[in-house]
Amino acid sequence: MRNFMLTLSYDGSRYHGWQRQGNTENTIQQRLESALSRLLSQPVEISGSGRTDAGAHAKMQVASFKADTALTADEILAGLRALMPEDIAAHSLTDAPPRFHARLSCTGKTYVYRVQNSPVPNVFERKYMYRIDEELDLEKMRSAAKLLFGEHDFSAFCSNKRMKKSAVRRVDEIRIDSLGSELRFTVSGNGFLYNMVRIIVGSLLEVGAQRMTQEALAAALKSKKRENAGPAAPACGLCLYEVRY
Amino acid sequence: MRNFMLTLSYDGSRYHGWQRQGNTENTIQQRLESALSRLLSQPVEISGSGRTDAGAHAKMQVASFKADTALTADEILAGLRALMPEDIAAHSLTDAPPRFHARLSCTGKTYVYRVQNSPVPNVFERKYMYRIDEELDLEKMRSAAKLLFGEHDFSAFCSNKRMKKSAVRRVDEIRIDSLGSELRFTVSGNGFLYNMVRIIVGSLLEVGAQRMTQEALAAALKSKKRENAGPAAPACGLCLYEVRY
Repeated sequence: MRNFMLTLSYDGSRYHGWQRQGNTENTIQQRLESALSRLLSQPVEISGSGRTDAGAHAKMQVASFKADTALTADEILAGLRALMPEDIAAHSLTDAPPRFHARLSCTGKTYVYRVQNSPVPNVFERKYMYRIDEELDLEKMRSAAKLLFGEHDFSAFCSNKRMKKSAVRRVDEIRIDSLGSELRFTVSGNGFLYNMVRIIVGSLLEVGAQRMTQEALAAALKSKKRENAGPAAPACGLCLYEVRY
Repeated sequence: MRNFMLTLSYDGSRYHGWQRQGNTENTIQQRLESALSRLLSQPVEISGSGRTDAGAHAKMQVASFKADTALTADEILAGLRALMPEDIAAHSLTDAPPRFHARLSCTGKTYVYRVQNSPVPNVFERKYMYRIDEELDLEKMRSAAKLLFGEHDFSAFCSNKRMKKSAVRRVDEIRIDSLGSELRFTVSGNGFLYNMVRIIVGSLLEVGAQRMTQEALAAALKSKKRENAGPAAPACGLCLYEVRY
């Protein structure tokens, strides 16, 4: 069996997220698996570096899969491109070491969350930004973000209430850039819980709008209780930006 | 009667172009007119700086209209924003001099046409680019473009066969920038005929792909016959970028 590493990008607007689901064909994973299974005439199961939510995007997602084939990686890539819709782009496909696994081998990730802070929509990027029209205190958000840096139990920033595994993750950086009317949150860490980036951004926006204090954010983290953090910001603004190995 | 100047941008993907049509509500002009008529409780007719094609976009379009109202321009703007869908953005509305007319007063325009020259789609901007996967000779396109600079009868670059008015226009510049896998055509002039930018770009792409010589392009211009120029490039890549007064 050969082992492959695939890098791709997608506009997640019309998909039900990354992960294969029993009752629908409309996930990124299912689209890829069904194309690869047809191309290689064998059932192919792929593993992503992680799931992305329904409506969230990926500038760089990495997946791995095993298959028996005499085709070169470039031939498979060309075939895959021909079978993919225009909102899923296969960038590269290479033979990988036998132990490589897109999720298990991953050492870090960066997400970007884009906010359009304006009464006027950005008509060309509206599907990739969350638009809000209220005053936000950038410096308050930046100093609140620092409270989350480092290794913590992020249970308060996770939508999965039945999580049994460890919720300890390390956040390396949350950078907030102001680019005209856009606020761009760049969040890097060694791994992320379900909805974690969206809840971090949603909480920081509460701080920016002065509906939540920095002390309340620190207390929410410490409490490990989801109800103490802010709401999850909408999926459309979220983009998986980089996956590191 | 007050006279107003409106600037706006739109993603034209789901519209049948700018111009009002008898049988459909789905044009930019109709959306604006019906919103303004409701807001101002009177029939409002707006004039755009020019028509944009079905599926073409505008980063900056200018329109003018006359109305009797006690509302301030800012109040009308806020009301208009509330009534517009997310793919049409009203940027500014100001009282204009009585003789100002968006089309008649216009002294120049710039269009941008974006080509994605790659086997891999740009998933986030696919609706704003025409994707082709063939080798293009940039220098050949650039020198061919210069043949079109200046004042000419552009009948060969116009899809309207029954045009009775003058087809003489002045093209000030056609700049072709190479930005990674993107080719960006920036076309400026004092006015443009129906489909003129798309036919110019379509012809230059024929030159770039070596299916048309520079001599054939020069002869097409001189012949004033539409069939001698190249095909119109698809509307999705076209964006009205600036309107000058």
